[in-house]
Amino acid sequence: RISWISDIIVVVSSENIKTMKTIIEKYGHKRVMVVEGGITRHRSIFNGLKVFAEKEFSGHLLQKPEVVIIHDAVRPFVEEDILSKVVMAAKEHGAAGAIRPLVSTVIASTADGCLDHSLERARYRASEMPQAFLFDIIYEAYQQCTDYDLDYGTECLHLALKYCKTNAKLVEGTADLWKVTYKRDLYAAESIIKENLSQEVCVITDAKETVAQVGFLLSESLKSQIKVEAVSTSQSKNDSCLQNILSGQCYNFICVNDKKCPFQETQQLVDVLEKSDVPLLYPVILILVRLDISENNSFSIGMEELTSIKKFARETKKKNILVYGLLIQYK
Amino acid sequence: RISWISDIIVVVSSENIKTMKTIIEKYGHKRVMVVEGGITRHRSIFNGLKVFAEKEFSGHLLQKPEVVIIHDAVRPFVEEDILSKVVMAAKEHGAAGAIRPLVSTVIASTADGCLDHSLERARYRASEMPQAFLFDIIYEAYQQCTDYDLDYGTECLHLALKYCKTNAKLVEGTADLWKVTYKRDLYAAESIIKENLSQEVCVITDAKETVAQVGFLLSESLKSQIKVEAVSTSQSKNDSCLQNILSGQCYNFICVNDKKCPFQETQQLVDVLEKSDVPLLYPVILILVRLDISENNSFSIGMEELTSIKKFARETKKKNILVYGLLIQYK
Repeated sequence: RISWISDIIVVVSSENIKTMKTIIEKYGHKRVMVVEGGITRHRSIFNGLKVFAEKEFSGHLLQKPEVVIIHDAVRPFVEEDILSKVVMAAKEHGAAGAIRPLVSTVIASTADGCLDHSLERARYRASEMPQAFLFDIIYEAYQQCTDYDLDYGTECLHLALKYCKTNAKLVEGTADLWKVTYKRDLYAAESIIKENLSQEVCVITDAKETVAQVGFLLSESLKSQIKVEAVSTSQSKNDSCLQNILSGQCYNFICVNDKKCPFQETQQLVDVLEKSDVPLLYPVILILVRLDISENNSFSIGMEELTSIKKFARETKKKNILVYGLLIQYK
Repeated sequence: RISWISDIIVVVSSENIKTMKTIIEKYGHKRVMVVEGGITRHRSIFNGLKVFAEKEFSGHLLQKPEVVIIHDAVRPFVEEDILSKVVMAAKEHGAAGAIRPLVSTVIASTADGCLDHSLERARYRASEMPQAFLFDIIYEAYQQCTDYDLDYGTECLHLALKYCKTNAKLVEGTADLWKVTYKRDLYAAESIIKENLSQEVCVITDAKETVAQVGFLLSESLKSQIKVEAVSTSQSKNDSCLQNILSGQCYNFICVNDKKCPFQETQQLVDVLEKSDVPLLYPVILILVRLDISENNSFSIGMEELTSIKKFARETKKKNILVYGLLIQYK
C-alpha cells in the first residue's frame, strides 16, 4: 500500500504461519516475509529484526534498512501520514513513537492493593504504535537486552533509551490507533471500516444530455455529505479516468442510464473492478439507475427486465460486487 | 434498579438540565435529583455532594448518606456487583475505586516532546469508575481542596489521599467499565447492549400435550446457548410467573400454540409487557409459533391469517414490541 516501504516482515506464532501465508497469497501482498515469533513480544520483534541483520531470508537477498518501523496487528487503522512522521522523526532522533493522551488517570498501587499515588494525567501519555528506529540503534538495543527485558519488558522505546541513550521523539497519533483488545473493539473496528468505505461515491453517466443532467444534479446534492467523483462514459472509454478512481479505493458506484438493458456497459465496469482487486477486501456497491424518460411510462417494470437484472446481480455477487437496481421516472 | 441506593444525584451542565429532566420523567426514574454542574469535573462532583451536606433539595428532605458512590455517565455498563464491592471496601477503608490493567505502556515526556522515561506496565493501573467514599471523608476532602485541585485535578481518590490521608482500596473492575469516548465506542456499546438482550428467552406454551412437548424440546435445544425460561399458560394465568420473568428484564419471547388466531392470549402478554415498562428501553421480540398438527395440512397459510397477524404486528410495533410469525408443520 505504501510505496516507500521496501520490505515487510510479519512475525507470527508457529501455529499461525500457514494461515498467514495463505492470507498473503490470497490478497496478493508483495514484499512480505513471514517469520516465526518468540514466546514474548520483545523476543518476537527481535526475531523479525534478525532477518534484516542477516541480510538474507530463505534465498532472498535483503538490504539492511536505514530505518525500521515496528507495528502491531491489533492496530489496523494506521495511516501513511503517521508512518511517515515517525520515520522522519526516527531519522533525526534515532527513535520515535506514536502517543495518545491518557483516557483514564493512572495510579500506582501498594502491595496490599491500595492506592499508593496517582499520576498527574497531563504529564503522561499512552505509548502506542507505530514506532520507528534507525535500524542500528534498535538492533543494538535488542542485542544488549537482558533475558529479563526480553521476557517482561513491553516497550521498544524504553530499550532504545536504556541501551543506546536515545530519547525517542514522541509523535501525536490519531484516535484510530487504539488497540483492538476486547470483543467490543471488533464492532468498533467494523464501524470505522464501514464509515471509511461510505465516504466516497463515483457517479457514472453516459453522454446523453438528459442522463448527464440527472447525473450532475445527483453529484451536486451528494457533495454536501460525501466525496463525489463524476465520470461520463465518453471519458471512461479510455479507462484511464476509471482506473484513477479505482486506485483511490472507491467502493460505491452509481451508474445512471436510460437503456432498458444496460448490462454491456455495466459488465465493462465489473470487469475493470474485478481486475483491480478492489472487491477482494470489501464488497463493492453498484447502483444501476434506469432513467425512464418516455412520455407514456407507467409505474411498472417488465418481468423480463427484472429477471435479467436479478440474474446479473447474482453473478456479480460471487465477485463480491453487489448490484442494486433503481427505476426513476423523469418527466 | 438497585434497591439499596437511596438517592441518586445527576450532575449536568445548565444547558442540559431540561433534557435530563425529560429523560427522567419519560422513563419513570425514581429517587433521582438533577443538580447543575460546574466548569470542571471536580467542581461538578462537589456541587453534587453539597446537596447531601445541606440535607435538603428543592423542598425534599435528604438524609446525609454514610457512603456515597461517584460514577460517570460515560460508563453505562456498571453492574450491581462492582457497586457493592466498592461500597463495602469504602466502609472498611474510607475510599475505594474500580481499576483496570493498563492496555498501553504509559510514558513521561520531556518538555521538548521526547521520551523521558516509561513506566513498568505491571506496577500501574488505570483508575476507572465507580468509586465509593465515606461521605464525611470525600466531603471533607472537597472542602479543603485548592482552586488548582478543583480546576486541574481529575482523580477523587487522590483528593481523599491528599486531604484525609485515606489510601483507597482498589477493586478490579470488568472490561465493560471502559469510558465511552470516541464515536467508535458508541458502536461498541451498541454491540454490548444487543448481546446482553439476546442472552435470555422465555418460551410460553399452552397446556396441550403436543404443544407443551414442542415447547419442551425447543427449550432444551436453546439451553446450550442462552438462558431459557419455560412457562406454560396454565401457570401464567395467575400472572405471577410471568411477572417474575419480566422483572428479570427478559426481552425475547417465543409463544408456541396450535390455534389459528392466537391473538387473545398474545394480547394478554402484550398488555403485561406494556404495563411493565420493559419495552420502553429496548424493543421486545415476540415470536408467535403456530403449530399445525392437522393431518391434511399443506405448506400454505391463508391470506386472512396472514393479514390478521400483520395487522396485529403493526399495532404492537407502536409499543416497541416486534411480533414475528412462524408456521411449523408437525406430523
